[in-house]
Amino acid sequence: MHETESPAAKTAKATAATHSPSPRLTPALASALQQRFGSRFSTAQAVREHHGRDESPYPLTPPEGVVFAESTQDVVDVVNLCREHGCPIIPWGAGSSIEGQLLPVQGGITLDLSGMNRMVALAPEDLQVTVQAGMSRRQLNQEIRGTGLFFPIDPGADASLGGMVSTRASGTNAVRYGTMRENTLALTVVTADGEVVHTGTRARKSSAGYDLTRLFVGAEGTLGIITEVTVRLHPLPEAMSAAVVSFPSAEQAVNVVIHAIQMGIPLARCEFLDPSSIRAINAYSRLTLPERYTLFFEFHGSEAGVAEQVELVQALAAEQGGADFQWANRPEERSKLWNARHDAYFAGLQLRPGARGITTDTCVPISKLAVSVEGARRLLEDSGFPAMILGHVGDGNFHCLILVDADDPDEVARAEALNRQIVELALSLGGTCTGEHGIGLHKMDFLQAEAGASGVALMTRIKQALDPQGLFNPGKMLRPGA
Amino acid sequence: MHETESPAAKTAKATAATHSPSPRLTPALASALQQRFGSRFSTAQAVREHHGRDESPYPLTPPEGVVFAESTQDVVDVVNLCREHGCPIIPWGAGSSIEGQLLPVQGGITLDLSGMNRMVALAPEDLQVTVQAGMSRRQLNQEIRGTGLFFPIDPGADASLGGMVSTRASGTNAVRYGTMRENTLALTVVTADGEVVHTGTRARKSSAGYDLTRLFVGAEGTLGIITEVTVRLHPLPEAMSAAVVSFPSAEQAVNVVIHAIQMGIPLARCEFLDPSSIRAINAYSRLTLPERYTLFFEFHGSEAGVAEQVELVQALAAEQGGADFQWANRPEERSKLWNARHDAYFAGLQLRPGARGITTDTCVPISKLAVSVEGARRLLEDSGFPAMILGHVGDGNFHCLILVDADDPDEVARAEALNRQIVELALSLGGTCTGEHGIGLHKMDFLQAEAGASGVALMTRIKQALDPQGLFNPGKMLRPGA
Repeated sequence: MHETESPAAKTAKATAATHSPSPRLTPALASALQQRFGSRFSTAQAVREHHGRDESPYPLTPPEGVVFAESTQDVVDVVNLCREHGCPIIPWGAGSSIEGQLLPVQGGITLDLSGMNRMVALAPEDLQVTVQAGMSRRQLNQEIRGTGLFFPIDPGADASLGGMVSTRASGTNAVRYGTMRENTLALTVVTADGEVVHTGTRARKSSAGYDLTRLFVGAEGTLGIITEVTVRLHPLPEAMSAAVVSFPSAEQAVNVVIHAIQMGIPLARCEFLDPSSIRAINAYSRLTLPERYTLFFEFHGSEAGVAEQVELVQALAAEQGGADFQWANRPEERSKLWNARHDAYFAGLQLRPGARGITTDTCVPISKLAVSVEGARRLLEDSGFPAMILGHVGDGNFHCLILVDADDPDEVARAEALNRQIVELALSLGGTCTGEHGIGLHKMDFLQAEAGASGVALMTRIKQALDPQGLFNPGKMLRPGA
Repeated sequence: MHETESPAAKTAKATAATHSPSPRLTPALASALQQRFGSRFSTAQAVREHHGRDESPYPLTPPEGVVFAESTQDVVDVVNLCREHGCPIIPWGAGSSIEGQLLPVQGGITLDLSGMNRMVALAPEDLQVTVQAGMSRRQLNQEIRGTGLFFPIDPGADASLGGMVSTRASGTNAVRYGTMRENTLALTVVTADGEVVHTGTRARKSSAGYDLTRLFVGAEGTLGIITEVTVRLHPLPEAMSAAVVSFPSAEQAVNVVIHAIQMGIPLARCEFLDPSSIRAINAYSRLTLPERYTLFFEFHGSEAGVAEQVELVQALAAEQGGADFQWANRPEERSKLWNARHDAYFAGLQLRPGARGITTDTCVPISKLAVSVEGARRLLEDSGFPAMILGHVGDGNFHCLILVDADDPDEVARAEALNRQIVELALSLGGTCTGEHGIGLHKMDFLQAEAGASGVALMTRIKQALDPQGLFNPGKMLRPGA
């Protein structure tokens, strides 16, 4: 059922199979884009190459041209022109997706939204904000400083809000604050017809018709182009405290998490790092943590509430042999810890200089977390690959970063086989192949295994209904002709 | 743009316009259903009439026949037979929807799922349970007694889980625990092709493909038949406390709620009742509350956490002239209070014996709650109708119950005009026409106004893609030919 090809080989094959030999950006379309956008339309080699790679290990796949949008109307005009000329469009935010979502495997143009990074409407009294899709999560938190509110969703990279919507992103805070699914209130989307749709109101809940917002959350740019995003904000907690604690085994660390979640302790953050991860971040971020199985916690609440949570978690950790409790209560200590965590992917790459990372992203029901982590750990150990395990275990979500020589097809194939084994284990435990990274090019077989033929058939009907010409980020998530 | 016809007249017209004069349940289909289901297929007058009315004020509209399903396979067989014979199917749970969702306005059969009320899989260690779609919310909480967990979503009626999914229901606990949107993890759905789709895994989050779960949540039975539902459960809080407090004006009561939400106080329940509502529930549930603008609160948490919340809310209430603080800390006192709240709709009907209720369901951003409630209050006062205002104000959602003589077309038209004014006010404030009841027959014009032509066009494409023959609950939510 699953091939053992490398992603690079798969991309090449997909490209060969579906990429028309003739360019999708025809001279007529190029001329029309040039006329409409002037210098904001580019076919320069350097610009195309910049948009030909994301954080995935796939080889360079440049688009035929790039348009830099500044408004929803720009996006409408690009969509209308590309539809008339049958040219694929790949929306681009920060370029940080890691499953190949941004690669134009069927040719076409990239629509760069990074210039659409303005605040549209801030409503602190309603705990919400509307921003253009190209704003990054860090910029957003910068813009709302002084409101007493924050936006919690924090994938490792400083991703764009539109990209985060599109991969249904989460991060370290999701255990307490939810993912982009729960935190996206409404979107402005340009459809294949060039129509502008507002998918929701500013109300916190609604029963008015199909949930168009949630349909575009996680659609990876395949159903429309998101130009504005309204998200929920959260009051900055009165008190915060972070802690690091280490354990003799992966299982003991994970057991603490399972018990805390089952007891309903409202953990704000709960991250697992194996000894390799700790070694990597110690080196990269100049920390001196013991190289053991480790949990990073953060607690949010009132002073009394945080104290209560800390006490409960300390007791759970003690039962499981937790040691070396270290506290980070000052803001700068906490920042250092979480910056190190966010940089862990890049830190991990340094474990094998020159290597590229293949990252698993399974998520399982919390009661299956220990068997899932322990199973992955054994598979990695047996494989001999330099690798690390870390993740948002409060959600049941963790990543294995497998370091490969991308130029060695045999090695890549073995790493992909390992990835597949880890995914199959998660699926057998009632889990998902992707907790937060999405399908992209990399997990289309896994989506088949997870959603079944009838589930994928339903998704394909939706795709065909909303994008009948197949011009929005084609070749991703759903196989052509699936 | 909006007509001023009564709902009854609209239904009649819709029926006349789209209901084929010939029966949709043909003799051939009746014979096939009889052969397959025996006594579980009925065309008896009493059975049809029982399924010809929901809690809406629409006149009796019986289906042509009723099938009582007991399994997903039964549903598959009904869908396949009905598709072959071109017969509409209306799924039925508890019959408690209030916007006419259950009325077979284009003929066809009702598929009664109330016999599908078994537990499929209980996983307390993962805080989740899978049940058949016909199980009611009270039965569910009964079944999980002893696990230390509860299912919080509580619309007024003892609705079925499948029905609650289908209207994206919420209730009094949604301010803390979310709605069916946040609490539905996965569904089993029978599609128009008779395929069985599992829309999700047991993982708490996923980025695997389009969010099919959220597409069926709120679809009001128009895209497929839900046969099983996996929902999140929540740990019973260590401590609970309920309070009643009354205010001189609606605005002052609502201001307390606005401030509490903006401060991030994790209220479990927060209900507003106007003096009419209090009069009604005092009479119906034998309470003796002062007939003033009143808030019902419930606080969940640890002992210390609850004490902290109570203190903060008391201070906010005192600032707004809150008086007569009454506490209900014993479980039986709390039950009495919340049962009275849940029965408020039925209590309200007694304010005008023989009347039917037309219920508004607007929801606005929290900062607009005072102007929205106050605007509705003035409109009701000017109208002279017996009416009451109450609702889940922590979400920005409230209901006006307008009591009408359903046999007086002029009165019904005036009440509908009033409903429309209240909805228009909410939409102008960035709100929605329905927080939790859905569109059904009653709010199709409002959906147009709220989602816009392009939003409704997108919904119509989805409907056509997933139900090309238009057999799933036709004539609801989207106008035929919209």
